[in-house]
Amino acid sequence: MEYVLSDHQYGKAETRLVRIYRDAARHQIHDLNVSTCLRGNFADAYLHGDQANVLPTDSQKNTAYAFALERGVAELETYALALARHFADDIGPVRAARVEVDEYEWERVQLAGDDHPHAFVRSGQEVRTTTATVEGRGPEQRVWVVSGLRDLILLKSTGSEFAGFLRDRYTTLAETHDRVLATSLIARWRHTYPEGDWNALYASIRQVLIEQFATVHSLALQQSLWEMGKAVLAAHEGIAEIRLSAPNKHHFLVDLSLCGLDNRGEVFHADDRPYGLIQCAVRRDDAPPAGPAWDAPSSFAG
Amino acid sequence: MEYVLSDHQYGKAETRLVRIYRDAARHQIHDLNVSTCLRGNFADAYLHGDQANVLPTDSQKNTAYAFALERGVAELETYALALARHFADDIGPVRAARVEVDEYEWERVQLAGDDHPHAFVRSGQEVRTTTATVEGRGPEQRVWVVSGLRDLILLKSTGSEFAGFLRDRYTTLAETHDRVLATSLIARWRHTYPEGDWNALYASIRQVLIEQFATVHSLALQQSLWEMGKAVLAAHEGIAEIRLSAPNKHHFLVDLSLCGLDNRGEVFHADDRPYGLIQCAVRRDDAPPAGPAWDAPSSFAG
Amino acid sequence: MEYVLSDHQYGKAETRLVRIYRDAARHQIHDLNVSTCLRGNFADAYLHGDQANVLPTDSQKNTAYAFALERGVAELETYALALARHFADDIGPVRAARVEVDEYEWERVQLAGDDHPHAFVRSGQEVRTTTATVEGRGPEQRVWVVSGLRDLILLKSTGSEFAGFLRDRYTTLAETHDRVLATSLIARWRHTYPEGDWNALYASIRQVLIEQFATVHSLALQQSLWEMGKAVLAAHEGIAEIRLSAPNKHHFLVDLSLCGLDNRGEVFHADDRPYGLIQCAVRRDDAPPAGPAWDAPSSFAG
Amino acid sequence: MEYVLSDHQYGKAETRLVRIYRDAARHQIHDLNVSTCLRGNFADAYLHGDQANVLPTDSQKNTAYAFALERGVAELETYALALARHFADDIGPVRAARVEVDEYEWERVQLAGDDHPHAFVRSGQEVRTTTATVEGRGPEQRVWVVSGLRDLILLKSTGSEFAGFLRDRYTTLAETHDRVLATSLIARWRHTYPEGDWNALYASIRQVLIEQFATVHSLALQQSLWEMGKAVLAAHEGIAEIRLSAPNKHHFLVDLSLCGLDNRGEVFHADDRPYGLIQCAVRRDDAPPAGPAWDAPSSFAG
Repeated sequence: MEYVLSDHQYGKAETRLVRIYRDAARHQIHDLNVSTCLRGNFADAYLHGDQANVLPTDSQKNTAYAFALERGVAELETYALALARHFADDIGPVRAARVEVDEYEWERVQLAGDDHPHAFVRSGQEVRTTTATVEGRGPEQRVWVVSGLRDLILLKSTGSEFAGFLRDRYTTLAETHDRVLATSLIARWRHTYPEGDWNALYASIRQVLIEQFATVHSLALQQSLWEMGKAVLAAHEGIAEIRLSAPNKHHFLVDLSLCGLDNRGEVFHADDRPYGLIQCAVRRDDAPPAGPAWDAPSSFAG
Repeated sequence: MEYVLSDHQYGKAETRLVRIYRDAARHQIHDLNVSTCLRGNFADAYLHGDQANVLPTDSQKNTAYAFALERGVAELETYALALARHFADDIGPVRAARVEVDEYEWERVQLAGDDHPHAFVRSGQEVRTTTATVEGRGPEQRVWVVSGLRDLILLKSTGSEFAGFLRDRYTTLAETHDRVLATSLIARWRHTYPEGDWNALYASIRQVLIEQFATVHSLALQQSLWEMGKAVLAAHEGIAEIRLSAPNKHHFLVDLSLCGLDNRGEVFHADDRPYGLIQCAVRRDDAPPAGPAWDAPSSFAG
Repeated sequence: MEYVLSDHQYGKAETRLVRIYRDAARHQIHDLNVSTCLRGNFADAYLHGDQANVLPTDSQKNTAYAFALERGVAELETYALALARHFADDIGPVRAARVEVDEYEWERVQLAGDDHPHAFVRSGQEVRTTTATVEGRGPEQRVWVVSGLRDLILLKSTGSEFAGFLRDRYTTLAETHDRVLATSLIARWRHTYPEGDWNALYASIRQVLIEQFATVHSLALQQSLWEMGKAVLAAHEGIAEIRLSAPNKHHFLVDLSLCGLDNRGEVFHADDRPYGLIQCAVRRDDAPPAGPAWDAPSSFAG
Repeated sequence: MEYVLSDHQYGKAETRLVRIYRDAARHQIHDLNVSTCLRGNFADAYLHGDQANVLPTDSQKNTAYAFALERGVAELETYALALARHFADDIGPVRAARVEVDEYEWERVQLAGDDHPHAFVRSGQEVRTTTATVEGRGPEQRVWVVSGLRDLILLKSTGSEFAGFLRDRYTTLAETHDRVLATSLIARWRHTYPEGDWNALYASIRQVLIEQFATVHSLALQQSLWEMGKAVLAAHEGIAEIRLSAPNKHHFLVDLSLCGLDNRGEVFHADDRPYGLIQCAVRRDDAPPAGPAWDAPSSFAG
């Protein structure tokens, strides 16, 4: 045969699920966006239109809801892992399953300093994320858990330089020893073991990232990212690797000299596009192999 | 002549401006989106392509930057008003100016409980807004200030009903005495006088809105909005009117009975579209006339 | 009583509806986004949580679907008007109804020059819009129909100037006699009578707008808009008024002189923000009153 | 050392560039979004804040503009390849460069059947894309070119089934032998050789994809994708592999039976989320290795 079906996968993307814990007067809520993705013995659906092995994406959606009800979602990674294991264990044609979950954070309404039992306000810009990947079943089953966040928007109004860079024919940028540094961080960290005190770990890593961004005197966004990544590994032995993607959200000093004004680092234009994009991975030198942990549906989409 | 130029206005929209106060080691930042809009004697630009009366939108942008530098932006309404007054007072052909400003909130990075002096994290989903409108100059000058917020996302996991409604041939909805109520609130309040302790007022009104949403046992989103609006007027004598626009962000209970599960108000689908849209205005019975306070560029755009 | 419920309205927004005509082998499709909005005797829902007069937004959604099935959507304005009249005529507490509909255009797949009977590709960027407003019932009933489009993205690579403008202290812009002019047009036109050959009229007005944008040598975007609006009225007696909202999507010539290159109007940066925003209305001098024709839910939202 | 900087890359993303050809009265325009990304000897910037090897992203942006001026952009792939080769050949520390370019399509304004020489309307929803990747320099230099499109929105109103699928405890979906099939296609194809008649090839492949979507009687979206991919390879010998990513944009038949109406495949709800997501790659069995051709910045971002 001349043409080959190579990589293929399918699933249900973006099931928007809110789980409410209401067994006590003080409710808890979890607001999730769940995507499931299956790999396995599905070639006949492509080659012959035969669905005998295809578990409908609608069933995957129902499973996401049912697991949220029966097993709960109090720890994001535990929920994602249970769902991925179910597909790998219980659905015959599945060889690997990946479950990605975003969580949107809410905080409890405060009334005169007290928590309201069942009213909430969306908080923060950032989204907590996790990806659980399960391959195989039985004793050979392998599992990877990646946690992370995105849209964590950070800004330093000083403590950032950019100088001493390579120059070519097209270089017109001036050096600076005091600039605004801002980014909308995406961070994802891979766990050595598929278990942990997930919520506490998330809170701690988020804080380490923010603290390093704040306290490192930055000679380049690259340097900030390296220090942020290294600090996370230093603080948490169970993290094998962390990957960081950081747009350099440019803040340009507005030139008001033609209006007779001297703008000494006080008024900036927050530009939309283009932006620098700095990306790196920091890992332990003895980190276990990443396997498919970092794969994502976007590998098909560019 | 058969055809008439009726309403017309022009300006510079969405100047993204960050103002940093750096005279002390502890910096302050304000992150704004400024839109200016002028009305006046501009017909010749339309009818004859004559720009003699047209202050370029580029100059309006520069003015927004220059005022941020010289006059500061510590109180959003004060900045918007100064800018609008400048256009009305100093630019000959202008008969009315409107300045709309959005502010994105940042919180200071915390390190071991202490504030960092120059590192910040974007906080909250909501955007603080203001519109200052100035008509005329000299003793006849009139001024309106509207403050507000948008994208304040609220959810109650209980304490909301919807029953006893009108039924027609197309009504299939079941009554409910316990549902999730969620919205992404837009609120705008008009001040009786163009002065105030703007920042404190904003914080207080935001809290009143949230508290009422939380504590009113809701028989309809309409009722919640009325109580929210009324409470704002009751708490602040200087507010003449408040307008509320609230999508009913539907959370549908997922039916898992076919999967053999009994979902008693625990797992919901957060739907995107369509959504209910409930809107109302609450005013003092002795409120001064609104004039052009509520006008917006969108009146041209539908 | 000290506080007054003033303006209020409610409805179902953004019902995404696809209607397929399949009575012949050659199918027709219409892809709509329908929003309904009711005004009337609904104060008790706000003041007392009493829904006796409130037709659920869910029923409004069902009605939008049912009318699409029974009455069809082949002419957008006819569908919107039928729906609005139904609410005003048949739902007791309703005093006024407004129905807004967006239509997304599809074109038929071509195979070797022939139309495919049931396969389609989304075409164009622009969205066709309509708003039907109905007040009262019986002989006193009044009706307004507004049609329009948005996101019609236009660009001229020459034939546009901007010079001779007013200068103030903040003016630094250079005059230009050859620039790129680009916009993403919103146009809405009000019909004198609530009937017409809607689809043909839409196609004609869209073409008039584009032609005028192309052929008017522009001394300002303002002038282009006036000529575009005037030409629509001149071409179609049944149009009472047209309103145009046009961002000036700035294309800045890139200065490459520091790289030793002379960029003579060939390479531009297409900037995102800020943008000029030019808006005007052109009407017949004998146009009937607009009444509530131009009102929109956004009047609550700013 | 315990921590290792592993993968890292940086560049300038989303330079929005419009190139106008104006040497003849009949202008040509190309509207691009250019992203550059460099890999190489940049570790010192991360580890020590030393920029000696770092070509600023601002210089990369200038280079994108300068190449658009000097070399032109008439064939997207040729431009991307020239830019990537320049970084790999001329910037010392660079070991590999990847240039991604999106192109937005415009069509010429028509006046009475004639082309207007310099006025244009944005056309179509879809975006043409390319990625050129260059590794090494001199005789060892290797090059990969991927072309593609995204946001090609397709719909069939019949000719699609979904039945005979695997059922588990969570399966509640009914089988169907006549449904609406709709997607927003992302397709990317890898060229065997880095040269070709790029514009003609793009037009042909786009048409093949659309035709296959239209004419294949679909037993599953999977089957449609396979046939689409296979047909592209069959039509063009120079294509080594094609990757397809297709959301199943669900159109749910609206149940109007409670309103007394029989909806026989005529009125559908176009749902937003969740959606099925079907992805596959089809390649020649003798395709050369893909190397880094499919890598994307998103591999860092999940």
